[in-house]
Amino acid sequence: MTAEKPVVLRIGQWPYSAEKWSKLQEIATVVDCESKNREEFLRDLKSKYSHVTNIARTFPSVTQTGRFDKEVVDALPDSVVSLSHNGAGYDQIDPEPLTERNIQLSNVTTPVEAPTALTAVYLTLAAMRNFQIGHDNLVQGNWTKPEIGRGVGVGKDPEGLTVGILGMGGIGRAIRDRLVPFGFEKILYYNRSRLEPGLEGVAEYVGFDELLAQSDVLLISVPLNPKTHHLINKEAIAKMKDGVILVNTARGAIIDEQVLIEELKSGKIGAFGGDVFEHEPSVPKELYEMDNVVSLPHMGTWTHQALRNMENFTVDNIESQIRTGKVMTIVPEQKGIDFNHSARV
Amino acid sequence: MTAEKPVVLRIGQWPYSAEKWSKLQEIATVVDCESKNREEFLRDLKSKYSHVTNIARTFPSVTQTGRFDKEVVDALPDSVVSLSHNGAGYDQIDPEPLTERNIQLSNVTTPVEAPTALTAVYLTLAAMRNFQIGHDNLVQGNWTKPEIGRGVGVGKDPEGLTVGILGMGGIGRAIRDRLVPFGFEKILYYNRSRLEPGLEGVAEYVGFDELLAQSDVLLISVPLNPKTHHLINKEAIAKMKDGVILVNTARGAIIDEQVLIEELKSGKIGAFGGDVFEHEPSVPKELYEMDNVVSLPHMGTWTHQALRNMENFTVDNIESQIRTGKVMTIVPEQKGIDFNHSARV
Repeated sequence: MTAEKPVVLRIGQWPYSAEKWSKLQEIATVVDCESKNREEFLRDLKSKYSHVTNIARTFPSVTQTGRFDKEVVDALPDSVVSLSHNGAGYDQIDPEPLTERNIQLSNVTTPVEAPTALTAVYLTLAAMRNFQIGHDNLVQGNWTKPEIGRGVGVGKDPEGLTVGILGMGGIGRAIRDRLVPFGFEKILYYNRSRLEPGLEGVAEYVGFDELLAQSDVLLISVPLNPKTHHLINKEAIAKMKDGVILVNTARGAIIDEQVLIEELKSGKIGAFGGDVFEHEPSVPKELYEMDNVVSLPHMGTWTHQALRNMENFTVDNIESQIRTGKVMTIVPEQKGIDFNHSARV
Repeated sequence: MTAEKPVVLRIGQWPYSAEKWSKLQEIATVVDCESKNREEFLRDLKSKYSHVTNIARTFPSVTQTGRFDKEVVDALPDSVVSLSHNGAGYDQIDPEPLTERNIQLSNVTTPVEAPTALTAVYLTLAAMRNFQIGHDNLVQGNWTKPEIGRGVGVGKDPEGLTVGILGMGGIGRAIRDRLVPFGFEKILYYNRSRLEPGLEGVAEYVGFDELLAQSDVLLISVPLNPKTHHLINKEAIAKMKDGVILVNTARGAIIDEQVLIEELKSGKIGAFGGDVFEHEPSVPKELYEMDNVVSLPHMGTWTHQALRNMENFTVDNIESQIRTGKVMTIVPEQKGIDFNHSARV
C-alpha cells in the first residue's frame, strides 16, 4: 500500500458501467480523457495526465488518440503501470513497447465470446442457406409464385458438410459449441498450438493446409497481428474447396480483401459472411453489393449485455491491478513476464 | 399379395428423388398427374386416374389441384388406400374425409426438423440482434463512422432471457437443441400434452398463458389446423411481455397477421422473424417494410439435402404402404385407426 491514490485515465465512452466506475472511485481517482486528437493527446500526457497510473481505452477511441504504437507508449508518463483495452482484439495496440516500459496490457476475454460466436453462427447460417438473398427478394416484392423455388438458389444444410474453425481460443470454442447441434459431418480446427483434449470437445485438430483443403465452411477466429495479417491470401484460398463458404468475425485484415472480391467473382469462394472489413467503416461497394455476401457493420458485441459485461470486465482489470499488482487477463504476448508491480490499496 | 400392380399418382415436381422413384417402379406403376387445374383434376380422377391406389403430392401442387378437402377426397377412386404429403405441414389436406374413406395420410417428419429449426434459429438471432437492420445500413452506405454505434439499435443477447417454444414436436425439439448452447436463462415450452421427461431435455413445461407471459423470445412451431388458426391473436399478444420477439416458422395463419402488424407498430411486439405468412406468397408491404421484421419467402426446407430427404421419405411412405399395408408416418389424427389394408407385393 502506497500513500498516493492511483489515477485512472478513462479514454472513450463508457455508458454501461457507471456503477462499476463509482465503486472504483473508492480506491482511485478517475480522470476522463478530453484530448481531441492524437497531437493533443501526446501533449496532454506530458501535462494534464502526467500522474496517471492506469489507463482504460475503447475500440472507437482510436479516432481520439490514434493507435497505441511506440510513439504513444513512449509518451506515457513513468507512473503508468497498466493499459486495459475494452475489447478482445487489441490490434490497435503494440504490446512490445508496453512490455519494454514495464506496462501491463489486458484485454477482454470471456464477455465477448458468446456474442461474437452468435454473430459467427448467424453469418454462417445466412451464407449457407441464401437467407439474405431470400429476404431481399421478398422485400423487393419478387415473391409472387409459390412454385418457382422462391427465386432463390437452393441452399446447403450442415448435413454431410465439414466446418473448419481457424483459431480455437475462447471465441473459436464458443463457435464450436454453438455449431455442434446443427449436425455438421465434422468440425475441424487449426490453432497455433493444439488444445488439450479436455478443451477440444468434438473438434478435430488438423494442420493449417488440411483445414483449408477439407472445410466446406470456414470460420475465421484468430487475432490480427503481423503474423495473421493477410493470412487468407491468394495462395491460401487456392488450397480451399471450390465454392467454400467463408465467415469472418475476427478482423478484416486477416483476409486480403481485394483477393476476396476476386475470388467471390470467380466463384472459387461460394459465399462470404463478414462482420469485419479491412478498412472499416469503409467497405468496398463491389464487395457488399454481391448477393452472396452477407455483411454486418462490426456488430459482434453490439448487445446490451455484451457492452455492459465488457466495460465491467475492463474496470475489473484495473481494480485487480490496483488491489493485487496484476491485471486479471494479461495478453498472451506478456504472459510469464514479471512486472513486479505491487498492490496499491 | 394381390394380382394387380399398385398404381401411384405422382402430383407436383419431384426433382431430387429420381433414383427412389425408379426403385419404386419395380413394385408399382407411377403415373404423373397432368391435370392443369382443379376442375380437370376432379374429372381426371374419374377417368385417367381411376385405378390409382396411392397418391403422392407436394406443397406447391396446390395450384394444380386445390386443397385436398372433402370435395377432392370424395372424388378419389375407391382403389385409393393412401395419400402421402411431401412436407411436414398438411394443412392443405383435410384428414377427416380421408379417414372416412379408409385412406391413410402420411406426412414428412424427421427430414424437415433440422432445416426448419435452423431457419428458426436464424430468424431468432437476426431479430434479437438487429442484424438485418445492420446489414441494410451497411449496403445503403450508411456505415461511415466507427463511433456512432453503427447506426443500429443495441441488440439483445440470450444472457438472462427466457425463450419459449410453442409446440414441442420434432421441429420444436430440434429448435430447443440448437438454442441450448446460446445460453438463454430458461427454455420453456407449451405443447398439447406434456412430453415424457426423456424427451423434454432442459426445456420446462408451462401452461399456454404462462408461456406467453414469461417469454422474451417466442418461437411458434405448431401445425396449422382449425384449433391453431389465429391462436396468436389480440388476446394472446396482450398476455405477452412488452417488446417480445416473435418468430414463426410453422404456418402464417397461426398468427392473425393484421393484428401482428398493429402490435409491431405499437411496439408491443419488439421484432418479428417470419418464414411463413398468412396469405403467402402475398405478404403485406406494411409488414415486410418494417425494419424490425426479418422475413423469408418460406425457405424452411429450401436446401439440397432437405428437398432430397423429404422426397425420398415420401416415396418410402408409399413403399411401406405397398409392402406392409401401412404408411410409415401416419398423421396424428389417424393414429390408432385400423385401416385393414394388406401388403400388395
